Amino acid sequence: MTTNEKALLMHEKWNGKLETVSKTPVKTREDLAIAYTPGVAEPCKVIAQDKEAAYKYTMKANTVAVVSDGSAVLGLGNIGPYAAMPVMEGKAVLFKEFGNVNAVPICLDTQDTEEIIKAVTYLAPGFGGINLEDISAPRCFEIEERLKEILDIPVFHDDQHGTAIVVLAGVINALKVVGKKKEDCRVVVNGAGSAGVAITKLLLTYGFPNIIMCDKVGIVSRDTEGLNWMQKKMTEVTNLNNETGSLADALKGADIFIGVSAPNIVTPKMVASMNRDSILFAMANPIPEIMPDVAKAAGARVVGTGRSDFPNQVNNVVAFPGIFKGALEGRATQITEEMKLAAAEAIAGLVPADKLSDDNIMPEAFDPQVAEVVANAVKSHIR
Amino acid sequence: MTTNEKALLMHEKWNGKLETVSKTPVKTREDLAIAYTPGVAEPCKVIAQDKEAAYKYTMKANTVAVVSDGSAVLGLGNIGPYAAMPVMEGKAVLFKEFGNVNAVPICLDTQDTEEIIKAVTYLAPGFGGINLEDISAPRCFEIEERLKEILDIPVFHDDQHGTAIVVLAGVINALKVVGKKKEDCRVVVNGAGSAGVAITKLLLTYGFPNIIMCDKVGIVSRDTEGLNWMQKKMTEVTNLNNETGSLADALKGADIFIGVSAPNIVTPKMVASMNRDSILFAMANPIPEIMPDVAKAAGARVVGTGRSDFPNQVNNVVAFPGIFKGALEGRATQITEEMKLAAAEAIAGLVPADKLSDDNIMPEAFDPQVAEVVANAVKSHIR
Repeated sequence: MTTNEKALLMHEKWNGKLETVSKTPVKTREDLAIAYTPGVAEPCKVIAQDKEAAYKYTMKANTVAVVSDGSAVLGLGNIGPYAAMPVMEGKAVLFKEFGNVNAVPICLDTQDTEEIIKAVTYLAPGFGGINLEDISAPRCFEIEERLKEILDIPVFHDDQHGTAIVVLAGVINALKVVGKKKEDCRVVVNGAGSAGVAITKLLLTYGFPNIIMCDKVGIVSRDTEGLNWMQKKMTEVTNLNNETGSLADALKGADIFIGVSAPNIVTPKMVASMNRDSILFAMANPIPEIMPDVAKAAGARVVGTGRSDFPNQVNNVVAFPGIFKGALEGRATQITEEMKLAAAEAIAGLVPADKLSDDNIMPEAFDPQVAEVVANAVKSHIR
Repeated sequence: MTTNEKALLMHEKWNGKLETVSKTPVKTREDLAIAYTPGVAEPCKVIAQDKEAAYKYTMKANTVAVVSDGSAVLGLGNIGPYAAMPVMEGKAVLFKEFGNVNAVPICLDTQDTEEIIKAVTYLAPGFGGINLEDISAPRCFEIEERLKEILDIPVFHDDQHGTAIVVLAGVINALKVVGKKKEDCRVVVNGAGSAGVAITKLLLTYGFPNIIMCDKVGIVSRDTEGLNWMQKKMTEVTNLNNETGSLADALKGADIFIGVSAPNIVTPKMVASMNRDSILFAMANPIPEIMPDVAKAAGARVVGTGRSDFPNQVNNVVAFPGIFKGALEGRATQITEEMKLAAAEAIAGLVPADKLSDDNIMPEAFDPQVAEVVANAVKSHIR
């Protein structure tokens, strides 16, 4: 049976993947009196006096909402809120299994930016954090920024920041392997959507001096037409020499390629034109921008993909469970740039120096240490 | 230690009462590939083609949202969404423990009718039903009616209909005990809020010919001033002789008193003025409209309260878990009047005829049969 067939069977067997379970028994009249009326009035009264007590007496302390409008789901596109549910349930399962964080999938039946912002604002009281998921660009940027201003709990668009953090972790380790310094690297990010923008921003914050973003039109420059407001904003801090041309032009002499774009768009010739000891993260799913063996034959040294059947899998699951675990435990009100950088360093640090190699730059997703280490890194950077 | 102290300790121990749990293991790469990418794309694609498949592949099949705005919580009043969470979590726990229905507490940070309607509409795709809870009257009437029109899943305001169903079940059995017919009974419902209105409506549907509603002002008649739109509507179908006067006037010659009002407002003299073999449901919490021993001493025959420490507890927990269990299993799109009546008959029927007595008209809440029997009754009335 194929993985796809197994997936259909499993989802049907359980009617989805997630259930809600009581932490406390309700087997006797006294249990009922403690968990429900009349006892439940006591925590209610305390919280009515002091909102902060919600973190003491309710699941807000350790629960996030996984919110999507189904507009940009996996590689499937705008499939809507009903069809997005299996992914959001899956995400919720991973939150619990990897980070021991409770998570509730919420698929919204609107794709209007203002309505999404209002809906999330309204449903926030019961949650300790909001994980936005699979919302298309550029709406995702505004929705996240506005919600961060409105809410006093962390709001985190995982397609942006989770991906960026894991990519940065991989880049940090890849640089150790090839012995290059970030200051000397020419970086090309292909795909100027939510992930590409967030990766570029985090790499800039980390200290890469110059990054070239590319999209379907080729190099994104201040002269490129048809950019959205976020892409325009990015031209102020990337491509400092305002280069123009194709992806092939961008890659000439580049040290690092990061693809969050489309299958098979990087050719061996392009890889051969890069600087020596080149690093490629070809993360288009399920078919990467270039297959690892092809890239290596053309001269690449370190190659990562989104896939578990190749070395160096760039997998958000090493980031988001630990990030929210740390944020919730430390009662962070935001996930800051410092916390993201600390998480990336922590993830990179999980691969011991003596184990680092071309084909081993990422920690094992199933290592139970991961979420703990990431959570502690995040917690230590809460202001 | 008192129940209240135990309740505080328990809520603090667990940070609330509810958690989310995976139904499927995620211990290996293959598990991950089935529960998340790439396998998860398969159920997504099927649902994108056919929305109905959401019931097959997602938790929508067996999950309800417990939605409140915190405007009318227990006897605590308008304590807001944060302080309402312990009650909604408790409700979610009861859904699972008694009906094996997953439930997610959602406390909304708005008390605007239109905004609540929109928020619930937006978050509905992932849920198989909406249980509205602790929303103040008369907003609760409009919110429920509008959501029933908009959504294709059951919407059920438990404070109204759950209470009404359990009261009707108790009334059905009480009539058996005292040997009266509904057609001959004068019924007084005291409290013209959400529960009082719903109880009155369901008793009318069941076939009680004349019901007098009372509120703080006394008997509610077509001449009463300051009624809200729903109370005005109720004057068209209740109090057919347009009587006026006090609660004491209403109770003269009455056979049944149903109180969802305030502590100690029924006096022994009022009870003494009722018809022989009178039935009283004094459900103000935690202190009833009249204490059972006082009512009995004054001549009442069957007395029920909301409390577990007196006989004949009127407890919604015998209704809502089974009602949603049946509605979800039978894929009902609404909870109809027929389903409510069937649920009440089923609850009443759970007390065997030879066990019925003045002090035994309600089934035991912890009887594991209850939800099953109620669910089957509901299912058999889905059109």
